[in-house]
Amino acid sequence: MTLEENIDQIMVNAKNAFTIYKKSSKKDRAQFLENLADALESQRTELVPLAMEESHLPEGRLQGELSRTTNQLKAFAALLKEGSWVEASIDQAKPDRKPLAKADIRKMLQPVGPVVVFGASNFPFAFSTAGGDSASVLASGSTLVIKAHPGHPKLSDKVFAILDSAVISSGMPEFTIQHVTDTSFDAGKLLVQHTVTAGVGFTGSQKGGLALVEYAKARKNPIPVFAEMGSINPVVLFSDKLAQDPTALAKQYAGSITVGMGQFCTNPGLILAVKSSSLDTFLAVLKDEIAKVLPQKMLHAGIQKAYNTGLNRILEKSDVSIVGKADTEAVDIEGYPTVVKTEGKTFLQKEYLQEELFGPYSIVVEVEDLSELETILASLGGQLTTTLMATEKDLADYPNIIDLQTSLAGRVIINDVPTGVEVCSSMIHGGPFPATTDVRYTSVGTTAIKRWVRPICYQGFPENFLPDELKAANPLKIWRLVDDNWTNESQN
Amino acid sequence: MTLEENIDQIMVNAKNAFTIYKKSSKKDRAQFLENLADALESQRTELVPLAMEESHLPEGRLQGELSRTTNQLKAFAALLKEGSWVEASIDQAKPDRKPLAKADIRKMLQPVGPVVVFGASNFPFAFSTAGGDSASVLASGSTLVIKAHPGHPKLSDKVFAILDSAVISSGMPEFTIQHVTDTSFDAGKLLVQHTVTAGVGFTGSQKGGLALVEYAKARKNPIPVFAEMGSINPVVLFSDKLAQDPTALAKQYAGSITVGMGQFCTNPGLILAVKSSSLDTFLAVLKDEIAKVLPQKMLHAGIQKAYNTGLNRILEKSDVSIVGKADTEAVDIEGYPTVVKTEGKTFLQKEYLQEELFGPYSIVVEVEDLSELETILASLGGQLTTTLMATEKDLADYPNIIDLQTSLAGRVIINDVPTGVEVCSSMIHGGPFPATTDVRYTSVGTTAIKRWVRPICYQGFPENFLPDELKAANPLKIWRLVDDNWTNESQN
Repeated sequence: MTLEENIDQIMVNAKNAFTIYKKSSKKDRAQFLENLADALESQRTELVPLAMEESHLPEGRLQGELSRTTNQLKAFAALLKEGSWVEASIDQAKPDRKPLAKADIRKMLQPVGPVVVFGASNFPFAFSTAGGDSASVLASGSTLVIKAHPGHPKLSDKVFAILDSAVISSGMPEFTIQHVTDTSFDAGKLLVQHTVTAGVGFTGSQKGGLALVEYAKARKNPIPVFAEMGSINPVVLFSDKLAQDPTALAKQYAGSITVGMGQFCTNPGLILAVKSSSLDTFLAVLKDEIAKVLPQKMLHAGIQKAYNTGLNRILEKSDVSIVGKADTEAVDIEGYPTVVKTEGKTFLQKEYLQEELFGPYSIVVEVEDLSELETILASLGGQLTTTLMATEKDLADYPNIIDLQTSLAGRVIINDVPTGVEVCSSMIHGGPFPATTDVRYTSVGTTAIKRWVRPICYQGFPENFLPDELKAANPLKIWRLVDDNWTNESQN
Repeated sequence: MTLEENIDQIMVNAKNAFTIYKKSSKKDRAQFLENLADALESQRTELVPLAMEESHLPEGRLQGELSRTTNQLKAFAALLKEGSWVEASIDQAKPDRKPLAKADIRKMLQPVGPVVVFGASNFPFAFSTAGGDSASVLASGSTLVIKAHPGHPKLSDKVFAILDSAVISSGMPEFTIQHVTDTSFDAGKLLVQHTVTAGVGFTGSQKGGLALVEYAKARKNPIPVFAEMGSINPVVLFSDKLAQDPTALAKQYAGSITVGMGQFCTNPGLILAVKSSSLDTFLAVLKDEIAKVLPQKMLHAGIQKAYNTGLNRILEKSDVSIVGKADTEAVDIEGYPTVVKTEGKTFLQKEYLQEELFGPYSIVVEVEDLSELETILASLGGQLTTTLMATEKDLADYPNIIDLQTSLAGRVIINDVPTGVEVCSSMIHGGPFPATTDVRYTSVGTTAIKRWVRPICYQGFPENFLPDELKAANPLKIWRLVDDNWTNESQN
């Protein structure tokens, strides 16, 4: 079988499974997601060492990440059980309306169809085979085709085998979840361009995400493509805040820059502050804190090489000076923590300094004043996050700043670090291009399900042919918009 | 000023106006939409004759369409005043959570930025300069650039002047609404490709919509493009329903096929039924009913020419036979009502028969059995609507049919005609490609606002820096998801 025939068979299987899977009740689907979580949990002692071997991430982190992964599946199960996420809306008939009778019109969200998910390397559990993209697809009622990440092939195989067993034991149709292990670009291209593919989810590099976008442009029919491609996550240190405790801020940010060897989409890669003696203190403490960080292995040799190449490219020019670097030299495929600094006008002139460098790196930009700060913020591309380290006085003194920040990113943080993405209903892990390819969606949190659903309108349906969500009796007791009023009552 | 400079100036104006307009309160924005509606209403006696002159549509229809247009503006005003549409969600901080404290995380929808709307010719009021796309953009808080439809330039100018006066008298910023009257393809291309443009709305032909999609593909940053490009809106006449009253069905559908000379995106262009004596009766009555229809002028010469060319192309082949045609010959730019029929196997073989012919035309396909019916339905592209004329017995006898229909379209209708699109919260005027370019959205009904908004997450914000929608006190008394429970209560 050629690769093309193989991908075709997979997508036809996904389509056939979809005709059955999409009809599963929300209750059964919730149970299925909980079964997937339990199945992964039961193999924890095998999964974590495999992830350690392939990703070089420390055990504690991977234990936590697996918990996050099973919690994500359970969060979507809870969403399905509660049920109101389908945006059910009912406009009841008004047969006596003049000049024209009004028909009975109802709508709710339904799954789009088979979705292809490309796993990320930096979260071998939480953004990979059984990660948030996969969980959101399965919760939506769409079938799932996972393109394994080549950075952890054995783990992906193992996780898929666990998921696949749970599909069958949960009574879901064969091929509800499928796994593509071919690592060629052609496999990705064929998956994105297959006529059956109804959506694509991706987390990874800008290069990878943009390649998928290009593949998708050649499709006859446009489909939802959500690629999360990272960002530099600007942080602004305001003067009043900085003056209060520059040492604490430097310690907090040294940690955020180097945690997990900086291998997070939300790594604070750009720190902006107006020149001041407090900033000098911040930089001095940052130097000491970075010096203490021990280099650790990065995810794989390719990422470490890209980091080193990018870092050397920056250092060999005279645009930046070093703020601090690890005292311990990096060996093997370890990342070497490094923080640099430059002036505002240099940063504005040298566009390469705005590019994401994936690893334990950040650039501090010392600006002359708030006007230069604003110019820099306005020059940046779309971001996943922006952060303000600010007192209420700082915020009040600069009333335009929150507006500037929300224009730039999907999440605006005050007085915290951008690393650490809470999985909850209010989380948005998205943002304007190039952070993602569709500013209207998120890949973390239960709202991520909205990428894979579409509204369907039911006009004039007899009660017993309506989906349960739209029946007058409201058997699922969900919140609905009934004649423009929110209610969870029955209409009988 | 060159065209390029002119478009650039317009988009820069739209961007600058956006920084002010997006901050308008929902209450003020609602008043603004009501003012727009009132201003249009006050000029009704001038607007309707102008629309009649340029569109050739009858006065009664245009009076009704203008009312629909002002009602749309008022419906969005009501949506803003109620306020819950922003999908506000609050996850409160849990500082004592172990192992990690949980931050305070909130989200809501905010406008995307300047949106370009391309008006349609077939609804000079309701889908044009002040139509549903425009109303949804303004309601979202995005600024609006309208590309006038060349089919009714004087009307578009007049409507824009009315809107623009109301912008100023409502205290909204200059350039909240702008009007582009250049009719060249280049103008459209420059608008879609401008770096400031944050969204595109279009209603019209497949050719026009696909051209905009191609323009958008050349953008560096992807933006939401929603093009509604029409469809053939299949109708299935089931045997039990057909047997009950074939005469009434034929009269109902003769009306739906020819109303407004068939110039609706929801015109029933394909009628499917299993062969039977009831179907023969239906066809005989349909013949008589179509014969009685008087040809009327179509929207403009180009549309009439396209209709005639398309109709002749169909009639000159031997794939169809005529069911019925108007007794009165068409003159000038009148449309000539015509219904044809063919066999299921012919329809399946001849792909050109599946193409939309915009005008008072429909094709009846006589199928051998339900299996052939299913094959035909599965062969169709995406549709705005599908319709089942069916008794409960019919639906029960063919349990798969509703599933087949929902796969195909954004709206599934039982026992009604697809023409007549109710403007309400539950309406979906959308569907899979090629009916639209994004199956997840609608261009009719208040849900249309969702095309032009994006979620923004606020983490760790002091209460007084949060938008009103997310403040603990819930001053707008909207429905919110608070710690995963729906409530309209204050959190104080």
